[in-house]
Amino acid sequence: MEQIINYATLHTFAKNVMIAMGHSIEDAQMGADVLLSADLRGVDSHGVARLHGYVRLMDAGRMNPKPNVRIEHETPSTATVDGDQGLGLVVAPKAMKIAIEKARNVGTGWVAVNNSNHFGIAGFHAMMALEHDMIGIALTNATPTTAPTFSKERMLGTNPIAVAFPGLHQPPFIADFSTTAAAVGKLEILQRKKLDAPQGWIQDKDGNTITDALGLKSGGSLLPLGSDRLHSSHKGYCLGSVVDILTAVLSGANYGPWVPPFLAFMPVSDEQVGKGIGHFVGAMRIDAFRPADDFKRHMDNWVETFRKAKPVDENQKVLIPGDIEREMTEDRMRNGIPLLQAVVDDLQGLGERFGVKF
Amino acid sequence: MEQIINYATLHTFAKNVMIAMGHSIEDAQMGADVLLSADLRGVDSHGVARLHGYVRLMDAGRMNPKPNVRIEHETPSTATVDGDQGLGLVVAPKAMKIAIEKARNVGTGWVAVNNSNHFGIAGFHAMMALEHDMIGIALTNATPTTAPTFSKERMLGTNPIAVAFPGLHQPPFIADFSTTAAAVGKLEILQRKKLDAPQGWIQDKDGNTITDALGLKSGGSLLPLGSDRLHSSHKGYCLGSVVDILTAVLSGANYGPWVPPFLAFMPVSDEQVGKGIGHFVGAMRIDAFRPADDFKRHMDNWVETFRKAKPVDENQKVLIPGDIEREMTEDRMRNGIPLLQAVVDDLQGLGERFGVKF
Repeated sequence: MEQIINYATLHTFAKNVMIAMGHSIEDAQMGADVLLSADLRGVDSHGVARLHGYVRLMDAGRMNPKPNVRIEHETPSTATVDGDQGLGLVVAPKAMKIAIEKARNVGTGWVAVNNSNHFGIAGFHAMMALEHDMIGIALTNATPTTAPTFSKERMLGTNPIAVAFPGLHQPPFIADFSTTAAAVGKLEILQRKKLDAPQGWIQDKDGNTITDALGLKSGGSLLPLGSDRLHSSHKGYCLGSVVDILTAVLSGANYGPWVPPFLAFMPVSDEQVGKGIGHFVGAMRIDAFRPADDFKRHMDNWVETFRKAKPVDENQKVLIPGDIEREMTEDRMRNGIPLLQAVVDDLQGLGERFGVKF
Repeated sequence: MEQIINYATLHTFAKNVMIAMGHSIEDAQMGADVLLSADLRGVDSHGVARLHGYVRLMDAGRMNPKPNVRIEHETPSTATVDGDQGLGLVVAPKAMKIAIEKARNVGTGWVAVNNSNHFGIAGFHAMMALEHDMIGIALTNATPTTAPTFSKERMLGTNPIAVAFPGLHQPPFIADFSTTAAAVGKLEILQRKKLDAPQGWIQDKDGNTITDALGLKSGGSLLPLGSDRLHSSHKGYCLGSVVDILTAVLSGANYGPWVPPFLAFMPVSDEQVGKGIGHFVGAMRIDAFRPADDFKRHMDNWVETFRKAKPVDENQKVLIPGDIEREMTEDRMRNGIPLLQAVVDDLQGLGERFGVKF
C-alpha cells in the first residue's frame, strides 16, 4: 500500500521536523533539500524514510543539531573540516561550498570531513558543482556491511562514489553508485517484497554465497562490486578501500570496522580510531583545464554518441548515468512522491512527537 | 617455454631500443623504468612484451620519439598538457612531475593530458607521488574494447584507475585495476594457454555472453566490471566513463569510440574528436589535510586490520592492494624475470633491427 504525497508537502514537513530537532532554519532547509532530492530521484532508501534514523541518532546522543562546522586545516586547494557531530546532510554541503570556493581561486578544491554522520544521497553534493561550471565529486564511508575479497568479516561500508559533469544542451552526466555489488537500499526493496536476492550480492557469516535478502541481520556481509574473485571483486574491494581511506584516514574520521553504524541493529564500537564518519568532496573548475563551452560541447557529443551505441535489445537503449533519476524527478515533481504506508505511519509518528503537522 | 632474464639486462635493452627509436637518453631511461616496473610487478602484458607495439606505432607514424611535452593551460592546482604524440611511458611521468610540483605549492595538483599514446602500467605513475608524502592518482583511456551496459558496441577502453597511499612501517597501498570485469592481459594469458574465459568477461558481436578468449577478434567486446546488469555492470560502465571523460573530454584528447587503438588488428578511425589518447594524473600532499605521520600511522593500522580480517578459507588470507605485485617484484629482482619464448624472439628481432645487443 502506498500514498502519493507532493514534493512541497514533504519538503515542508522534513524541514519542520529538522527545525523541531533543533536545527537552524538554514540547516533544516538544506537537510530537507538533500532528503527530498533522494525521494525525487527515486533513491527512496535515502529520502524522508531516513528521517526516523536521524532522530534515532539524536536520541542516542550521536548527532548534534547545532554543529559548529569548522575548518581544522587548509591550503589554497584543500581543507580538513570537523563536522562537530552534525548530520552529513548539513555538513557535506558546507564542505562542498568550501571546495567550490577553493576551485574558484586555484582551479580545484578538495575537502576531507571528519566527525560527521550519514550524508544522504551522494549525488546531491556532487551536483552542487554543476551550476558553477565545475565537476563535482562526493565520497563517504558508511556502516560496515561489506567483506573484502577472501574475507567473511564486515570491514567496509557500501562507500559510494558520485561524480557530476555538466553538459551544454544535454543534461549533466551524474554517476552515483555504491562500490558493492548491490546497495543496502536494493536489499530493503527485496525484503519488503519478500523476494530472494540474486547470487553474488551477499554471503553468510561463514562466507557462503546466499540469497536470503535478510542475510545481513544474521551476521552476513555484502560482497564488493564484482561479486567474486573470478569476476574481479578485488576491484570493488579496492574502490571501497580507496573511498574509506580518502574519507577517513585522510580526514581523521573512523575507518574500516570502526565506522559508527547508521543501522539500528548494529552495535557501536567502544573503541574509536577517529571522529564520527568521514566524507571527501571535490570541485574542479572546468576552465582550469579547457574553456568550459568546449568541454560541454564535447560532453554533449559524448552523451549523444553513447546514447546511440548499438543496443543488445532494441527495446532497451543504452542509458547515460543520471537518465533514470532525471526522468523520475520530472515524474515525481509532477505527479507526487509515492511512499509506502509504513513510511507514512513513521512520518506521522515523527509529526506527533515533534508537533509538526503532516 | 620460458627464459629467465635479469632486471638489469632487460632494462638496458629496453633503454637502448628506445634510444635507437630516437628517444633522448633521459626519456629512454624513464620509458625503460616504466616498462620494467610492469615486468617486475608481474603485469607482463604491460612490460617489455609491449616494446614491439610501440615500434609499430612509430612505424605507423603515430608516435613521436622526440616530443615537446608542453603545458597548454594552467592554474595554481591544474594543468592541461599536450603530449606531442609522445609515448605515454614518457609523457605521463612528466605530467605527474607537474602535478607533484603544484601539490607542493598549493596542496594538490591535477594534470589532464592530450595527444599521448599508451602509458604502460598505471600504478607506476601513481607511485611517483609516494616519496613526496603525497597520494598519487593515474587514469588513462584506452583502445575501445568494452561495451556499455545494454550495448554490444565497443565504446570504452579498459580505462584503468591507479591510486597509491604511503604507509609508515607498512608498505604502500597501491590499487591499480581496469574498470572491466577482466583486463586484456588476462585474456592474453588464457589465449596462450588455449583456455576458455569465464562467463561474464566477454560477449560476442550480438551481445551474447561467450567464453571464447579470442572473442574480441571476432567483433566481441569486454564487459564492464560487474559483468551484467543484475551484478551492477552499470557501475563498471560509470567508472570507465568517468575515466574517459576526465582523461579525454577534459583534456582535449579522443574519447569513446574515437580513441586510436593500440591493438594492431583494430583500424584507426579517420574522424578524430581530439588529439591522441588522454591521461589524467593527480597528486595530493598529505599534510595539506593532516600531518603526514598521523596519516601514515593510521594507514599502518588500516593495513594491519584488513590483513587480519577473518578469512573465508584459512589458507587464503585477505590481501592488501599491492601485496602480490610487491612480492613479485622482490622475487623477480632476485631471481630474474621469466619471459615467454615468443617474447624473447620478438625482442631479439627488435635487437637486430635497431642494432642493440640482447
